[in-house]
Amino acid sequence: MPLLPSWVASANRPDTPFPLNNLPYGVFSTADSPPRCGVAIGDMILDLAAADAAGMIGLGEGLFDQPRWNGVMALGPDAWHSLRRLLTALLAEDAEDRAILEPCLVPMADARLHLPFTISEFTDFYASRHHATNVGTMFRGAENALPPNWPHMPIGYNGRASTVVVSGTEVIRPRGQLMPPGATAPAFGASRKLDYELELGAVVGTGSSMGQGVTVDQADAMIFGYVLLNDWSARDIQAWEYQPLGPFQAKAFATTISPWIVTAAALAPFRCPTPPRAVPLLPHLADTGPALFDITLCASLTPENGTTETICETNFAEMYWSPAQMLAHHSSSGCAMTPGDLLGSGAVSGAEPHQRGCLLERTWNGAEPLAFRDGTRRSFLHDGDTITLTGAAHGDGYGIGFGECSGRIRPARETP
Amino acid sequence: MPLLPSWVASANRPDTPFPLNNLPYGVFSTADSPPRCGVAIGDMILDLAAADAAGMIGLGEGLFDQPRWNGVMALGPDAWHSLRRLLTALLAEDAEDRAILEPCLVPMADARLHLPFTISEFTDFYASRHHATNVGTMFRGAENALPPNWPHMPIGYNGRASTVVVSGTEVIRPRGQLMPPGATAPAFGASRKLDYELELGAVVGTGSSMGQGVTVDQADAMIFGYVLLNDWSARDIQAWEYQPLGPFQAKAFATTISPWIVTAAALAPFRCPTPPRAVPLLPHLADTGPALFDITLCASLTPENGTTETICETNFAEMYWSPAQMLAHHSSSGCAMTPGDLLGSGAVSGAEPHQRGCLLERTWNGAEPLAFRDGTRRSFLHDGDTITLTGAAHGDGYGIGFGECSGRIRPARETP
Repeated sequence: MPLLPSWVASANRPDTPFPLNNLPYGVFSTADSPPRCGVAIGDMILDLAAADAAGMIGLGEGLFDQPRWNGVMALGPDAWHSLRRLLTALLAEDAEDRAILEPCLVPMADARLHLPFTISEFTDFYASRHHATNVGTMFRGAENALPPNWPHMPIGYNGRASTVVVSGTEVIRPRGQLMPPGATAPAFGASRKLDYELELGAVVGTGSSMGQGVTVDQADAMIFGYVLLNDWSARDIQAWEYQPLGPFQAKAFATTISPWIVTAAALAPFRCPTPPRAVPLLPHLADTGPALFDITLCASLTPENGTTETICETNFAEMYWSPAQMLAHHSSSGCAMTPGDLLGSGAVSGAEPHQRGCLLERTWNGAEPLAFRDGTRRSFLHDGDTITLTGAAHGDGYGIGFGECSGRIRPARETP
Repeated sequence: MPLLPSWVASANRPDTPFPLNNLPYGVFSTADSPPRCGVAIGDMILDLAAADAAGMIGLGEGLFDQPRWNGVMALGPDAWHSLRRLLTALLAEDAEDRAILEPCLVPMADARLHLPFTISEFTDFYASRHHATNVGTMFRGAENALPPNWPHMPIGYNGRASTVVVSGTEVIRPRGQLMPPGATAPAFGASRKLDYELELGAVVGTGSSMGQGVTVDQADAMIFGYVLLNDWSARDIQAWEYQPLGPFQAKAFATTISPWIVTAAALAPFRCPTPPRAVPLLPHLADTGPALFDITLCASLTPENGTTETICETNFAEMYWSPAQMLAHHSSSGCAMTPGDLLGSGAVSGAEPHQRGCLLERTWNGAEPLAFRDGTRRSFLHDGDTITLTGAAHGDGYGIGFGECSGRIRPARETP
């Protein structure tokens, strides 16, 4: 599909992440107005509350003057598709109602971006084979790298929704119990192995009933869109706490997402197949069509007063399990899914070292520190470091982006 | 403390779980009225929306005509204590306003009870030493029964809030991936090792900020009250899925709680100390006073058309970690806690076999089935079985209860 031209001139530039083909959903405020729903177009935001008040939307009362997209999500796929068709028509080059909509545009530079939806619950998966193999090799040896269940189901754990924050929110270095090698008792203190994970998050738009599972195809249709997701991780806290019940405080202190939800519809042209299967999949998780997305994903690290360095370049097409398979598995026991559930993919690692989506893998648990051009070395994150994730699907003469997903590390608090 | 006499006669009977000393909070509806907040007193419910409309409460507009207690929780401990003092005075034998309140009483027999609060997030701990030792012995041998981290912190995992249901809700037997001993590949089907866990749940009333931890004393003051909690568990799904990231679908299909939240204030006379410590505790988790509760807890099993049999009799005083310690640990990384967070204790097992709080322990993973008086045998739960949890704190001539926490098993669904 080629670039769809818009009457918003900046949306037609080849380098914008927000052409008319994208139309990602976010929540923004300005000096004059409280947080409300908007859609990114070029370097502008279309204020949907204002456009609705001007009679241009009509999807339902009061959907857009709220600081969350959950209301629209709950309307279901038919409404999502109607809204997207409508916005595509209203912002197209040849649109008739340009004069009505123009006053509803807000320069992105004047807006503050907020969490785009209320996260009901957050689940984090472990769905990249390269990531799971690398981490498993480090901690259990190459022979036992992949747990026996791994090829049969998307392994995941319930995360913490209360600390999912929008890009730009500073992250306080967590404290926790640390048991360094050779120690005989744990100490409580600031994490020394603070890491990031480069992930994509699937935003569940429609729910499922308790007691019911959903098929992979049903799951695919339930996904409203995708965000970039940084699953900040304290590897030393994790190493000591995670047996036998999994990660807990090591990942509870912060998870950062991009301000824009790129819809599943916008990503449809970029679908690609899951990889060949190591074992036959059980019927309820079987592949039913191309369910991954060709999205290049990058992570960069900027030391305080330092130079930004790219530390990972990978692609969501590298995943083993698709978001639809994750969601189908999530519901398989009869677990009710709800609008606003957020499913992280786990670190999106590829086969090559520069494709490894976290520092644990990239530096092999600190054994091989990264050496930057300016002489900086990094095994894990320092105070003042900023991690920025970006992602793009590349069309014919246009790109689709999520906006930055970034967070800067602040020193650990003193007490308690 | 002796029984506090009430003008509601049934609240003065020695066998009521709801004397004036208790005043637990729930949500109820009747044939005529939608769900709203109430307090149990004897065999009646005081309709707090009605009492408020009659001018008798005055804690804030519209707090009680909602189907959840979260609004009251968010007001904080001073408001909780004011409300309890007020209700104690209004329902006391010598109360002056009896004539105004009497029309606000609804017979419990005419009411349907609902989930008493909206669960923000659900966390389940593993805080009984007897339970953790028994389970660890079964799966890792007596030498490695307790993981090395266990004596140093309350081990827990994030559970699933969307499937927390109120007592009386039927539970559909979950399906999932099963890998029986000797099998070479997993199959997808109905769990054959469906279990319950007898737990107490702490209801977090006030939250904490992201980036901040709370002390054990602060945590104690944040807890609004307690519910009985049945952490339904599919042991065969759990055994196959739980490495390396912990329980997921094995515990996601249902968690049942009692309809009544017994307040921390009502349980204050029953505080008792935590046990002697196996290792010194780190300062942020150190004991600061009696933080457990002397609450007898029972589980019974009723086969379909069968006779009810008590299968566990234990006491919350048997726990190793207190709810305040669980909550302090939960916040220790900087994880924000929110009103409506629910913290399960994990199975409350004691040292004796009849004190074991789940069938996995009680039948030693099915090796020693329970034999009932009527000839029924049980290793794990059958379709049609009902598990009922009860709990009571025993005062001087009165008892404090939670109401029943029960659920009946329905057969697994067919598809998908």
